[in-house]
Amino acid sequence: MESRSIRLAVIPGDGIGTEVVAEGLKVLEAVGQKVESTTYDLGAKRYHATGETLPDAVLDELRGYDAILLGAVGDPSVPPGVLERDLLLRLRFELDHYVNLRPVKLFPGVATPLGEARPEDIDMVVVREGTEGPYTGAGGVMRRGTPQEIATQESFNTAFGVERVIRYAFDKARSRPRKKLTLVHKTNVLTYAGDLWSRTLQRVAADYPDVTTDYCHVDAASMFFVNQPERFDVIVTDNLFGDILTDIGAAIAGGIGLAASGNVNPDRTAPSMFEPVHGSAPDIAGQGKADPTATILSVAMLLDHLGLTEAAAKVEQAVADDLLERGGNWTARSTREIGDDITARVAG
Amino acid sequence: MESRSIRLAVIPGDGIGTEVVAEGLKVLEAVGQKVESTTYDLGAKRYHATGETLPDAVLDELRGYDAILLGAVGDPSVPPGVLERDLLLRLRFELDHYVNLRPVKLFPGVATPLGEARPEDIDMVVVREGTEGPYTGAGGVMRRGTPQEIATQESFNTAFGVERVIRYAFDKARSRPRKKLTLVHKTNVLTYAGDLWSRTLQRVAADYPDVTTDYCHVDAASMFFVNQPERFDVIVTDNLFGDILTDIGAAIAGGIGLAASGNVNPDRTAPSMFEPVHGSAPDIAGQGKADPTATILSVAMLLDHLGLTEAAAKVEQAVADDLLERGGNWTARSTREIGDDITARVAG
Ligand SMILES: CC(C)[C@H](C(=O)O)[C@@H](O)C(=O)O
Ligand SMILES: CC(C)[C@H](C(=O)O)[C@@H](O)C(=O)O
Repeated sequence: MESRSIRLAVIPGDGIGTEVVAEGLKVLEAVGQKVESTTYDLGAKRYHATGETLPDAVLDELRGYDAILLGAVGDPSVPPGVLERDLLLRLRFELDHYVNLRPVKLFPGVATPLGEARPEDIDMVVVREGTEGPYTGAGGVMRRGTPQEIATQESFNTAFGVERVIRYAFDKARSRPRKKLTLVHKTNVLTYAGDLWSRTLQRVAADYPDVTTDYCHVDAASMFFVNQPERFDVIVTDNLFGDILTDIGAAIAGGIGLAASGNVNPDRTAPSMFEPVHGSAPDIAGQGKADPTATILSVAMLLDHLGLTEAAAKVEQAVADDLLERGGNWTARSTREIGDDITARVAG
Repeated sequence: MESRSIRLAVIPGDGIGTEVVAEGLKVLEAVGQKVESTTYDLGAKRYHATGETLPDAVLDELRGYDAILLGAVGDPSVPPGVLERDLLLRLRFELDHYVNLRPVKLFPGVATPLGEARPEDIDMVVVREGTEGPYTGAGGVMRRGTPQEIATQESFNTAFGVERVIRYAFDKARSRPRKKLTLVHKTNVLTYAGDLWSRTLQRVAADYPDVTTDYCHVDAASMFFVNQPERFDVIVTDNLFGDILTDIGAAIAGGIGLAASGNVNPDRTAPSMFEPVHGSAPDIAGQGKADPTATILSVAMLLDHLGLTEAAAKVEQAVADDLLERGGNWTARSTREIGDDITARVAG
């Protein structure tokens, strides 16, 4: 599809979302790929104006695009969780983004809080399940506000949902030099779900004799991210554990300003959605302080997903070069300056 | 109770559990406190010999002690989760250990993977709920082993259970110089449970005007443990989030060999149980390689819980001195050597 243009839906969202998305689009254009983009004003503003988070008609329209680029959603003026659940999570569920793909990679030149870690120690990919687990919203409350209140949350795990994400993770592991896949769960406590995940991993492993597998409880894995990150190559895990692990991953790989992600529908029955792992950061919104690098790396993932691997590599290389120079020779740059610097490398 | 002796139940358990508990007891005796201890052979051996994990009669007997010291349970020869659930978690539940108290403290001289962190940056206490949340074992499976399998896990949260642990955490925060309490949850996704936790925190806060409170999502908190640990003083959180956070805590504070914990029943309707956060580590069991420091610090917590604050402080100081010397002047020591060194300081 090198020649035809990408039909892209853009959801800048709230806070710094709009700022970082602008830089992502700049880089995307510089890569020489034709793009027809349409911007959707979903987020806090629309919610306040119309009460809508994600109207069905908009969702239907979004299905027609090749991909979606999202900035960030969430604003203190909206009741907590409304935009996260009714917009962000709803998009992930409705568009069947069953793989939430989150590379954790320390680029050369980037400062990490881990004193001794080198780039070769931190180079993994977390394949986080994106459509089930404790994220479905199931649960309830009884006698709310009384001393007898009971609140429940339910985690749903299906053979269908677990197997497809595990197969994806095996394919991903096979494509990497180390060919190692680690399942992260809490099988000793969450026994029903853990049993399904473990059995499925073992069964699918028979189809991938070239991939080494192991297992790690989520508490130990969280510790190993900090003191033995080199232990991991590809990780497959449930929605909630993946949420936690990838934030630790962002921390060790230089911060949330660099962490990219793809909400991927590998079956391509709907567009995939790419977004930085960070949130809308209302505290620094509008100040030109946000780092657009995570969004730009998400654009590279988007290109890769669309089969534009050369363009993807070009963007990632431009980011790597920029980070290397930054590391040696740091001066604080604005959101736009970082975007401009990376754009120049991509174009030049 | 300075004068009368402590009636102590000891459960060395499996793997390195027996090795580290021996050192813990040595230190306890050196502190000059009379102890009458009874050892219980719960763990893998008993399970294989009799099929029992925690017989009701033993549980009843355990209720009669002042406190319990536990090493670690779990062995590869036992089906995964059996000892964890039917012994360890059952003790926590039956003895109503609703506070799982886990200090995260970087002692001077101890190496941390965080390059820039100083002891004053890492000094917090995690108050982990110990009797409900996703740990109750609730859930089920349907059509197991078929492509239509569904496995569920349920998290139970009660006003009763949430309020009592939050009150404990407020008291703990009040007793510390910073007087800051952070609730960690995932209110934007686990909305029913999150709502109960948030509302309860807000309500109880009215009784503690001198304590500052804030809130942090578990993913962000996990990241901040790595790149802004100084942000935290006292944390209160649910059973599963606490499990994960305290392993990250162990990593940043110098490793799992130093992390102590207390399973506390603050109402004293049953004995509290003190144990290192680490597991039975079958890979290094029997080799004298395990670090008993976590167990010794757990003994200090035990003494403190029994009101023997001077003795507790003495043990903690002995550990601190030992760690400081180790930091400057490291030679590998065996489990017993470390125990002996700390014992000598306590006795001297
Ligand atoms: C905003 C929130 C619902 C979301 C999640 O929990 O998935 C975010 O933390 C993420 O990781 O993308
Ligand atoms: C062994 C396991 C059941 C236990 C837990 O999850 O609580 C352990 O990880 C801990 O933190 O004490």
